Amino acid sequence: MRTTARLQSLIDALQVLPGVGPKSAQRMALALLQKQRPAGLHLAEVLATAMRDIRECRICRNYADADECEVCRDPHRDPSTLCIVESPADVFAIEHAGGYHGHYFVMHGRLSPIEGIGPEELGLDRLARRVEDGSVSEAIVATNATVEGEATAHYIRQLIGHAVPDITRLAQGMPVGGELEYTDGGTILHALRGRRRLSGE
Amino acid sequence: MRTTARLQSLIDALQVLPGVGPKSAQRMALALLQKQRPAGLHLAEVLATAMRDIRECRICRNYADADECEVCRDPHRDPSTLCIVESPADVFAIEHAGGYHGHYFVMHGRLSPIEGIGPEELGLDRLARRVEDGSVSEAIVATNATVEGEATAHYIRQLIGHAVPDITRLAQGMPVGGELEYTDGGTILHALRGRRRLSGE
Repeated sequence: MRTTARLQSLIDALQVLPGVGPKSAQRMALALLQKQRPAGLHLAEVLATAMRDIRECRICRNYADADECEVCRDPHRDPSTLCIVESPADVFAIEHAGGYHGHYFVMHGRLSPIEGIGPEELGLDRLARRVEDGSVSEAIVATNATVEGEATAHYIRQLIGHAVPDITRLAQGMPVGGELEYTDGGTILHALRGRRRLSGE
Repeated sequence: MRTTARLQSLIDALQVLPGVGPKSAQRMALALLQKQRPAGLHLAEVLATAMRDIRECRICRNYADADECEVCRDPHRDPSTLCIVESPADVFAIEHAGGYHGHYFVMHGRLSPIEGIGPEELGLDRLARRVEDGSVSEAIVATNATVEGEATAHYIRQLIGHAVPDITRLAQGMPVGGELEYTDGGTILHALRGRRRLSGE
């Protein structure tokens, strides 16, 4: 195919984005060229800044603009509650839900011997040091409800159990708006096991 | 939602891409940050270059790195055949199909009085000057098979008909691999009207 070298480089480079193949990359490049050049330049700028300057918070390992992230620096958040998650996307999801006011610890992965991901890769030594002084009263282990997520949760419980009084997992059960008919058996079993008395409130 | 300002800027800026909403923008930003920072920086670079430096070929109006595009500069292409298309994406499609060795003229749009797009916006004055000397023997008007595309084709025929001996439209009919059962009536009518004798070759 004959095209300008610059346009072809752009189409190739756009395919680093997840879910973007040659066809959508071409559509994106042409759309930017035709009507969105200033916005495209702006995207190039913030992208370069983000790739160069976003680092990991030295306390919780979430992404941060400075040495410490906004949550860790916020005096209104409760540092005695710690939510341990697999990825920054999980922090997004929990913050978006609202209602959680504790701190986080981001592992950037889960234990996976096959992929060579062990406790050090997840920064679990840092997690252990953080809870050592007894300042964390509850650790919510919010790893995913997958086999690897459960195994990681189990490991974390053994690692920090002596220093943290309460170690909890997220409740499993019916999703809000979910219908029994379309819910898988494992979820229904968990929902039955965790059933709660209807109160008269 | 609490996040780093730089990450949020990146998520916002990515939404300029067609088909990218807040959720996929977040997924893209996090994927780049986690594993693809060098590729992300490279994307930022080629994106900035493309937005700044890609211009329109002064002959055919397709995108080009220099004053004239690769097709217009190629001595092996036949300048007496001119394919007139609505967009650079159409050039991609035709070049990808292979088998066309003439030149192009890119209108970057189609006539649309409602949107205020007239002949000048499409550079049709330049098209008229280009064919004026009689050097173009065939013009293939490859506007889309839509109402506006047909109207634009009609206008072009009136505009350059006196200077170009052959003015053609792309054949309409069954797409290759298409099945009658799933083909719309308009296409079937065109395919019937344009039917060709089975030769014994």
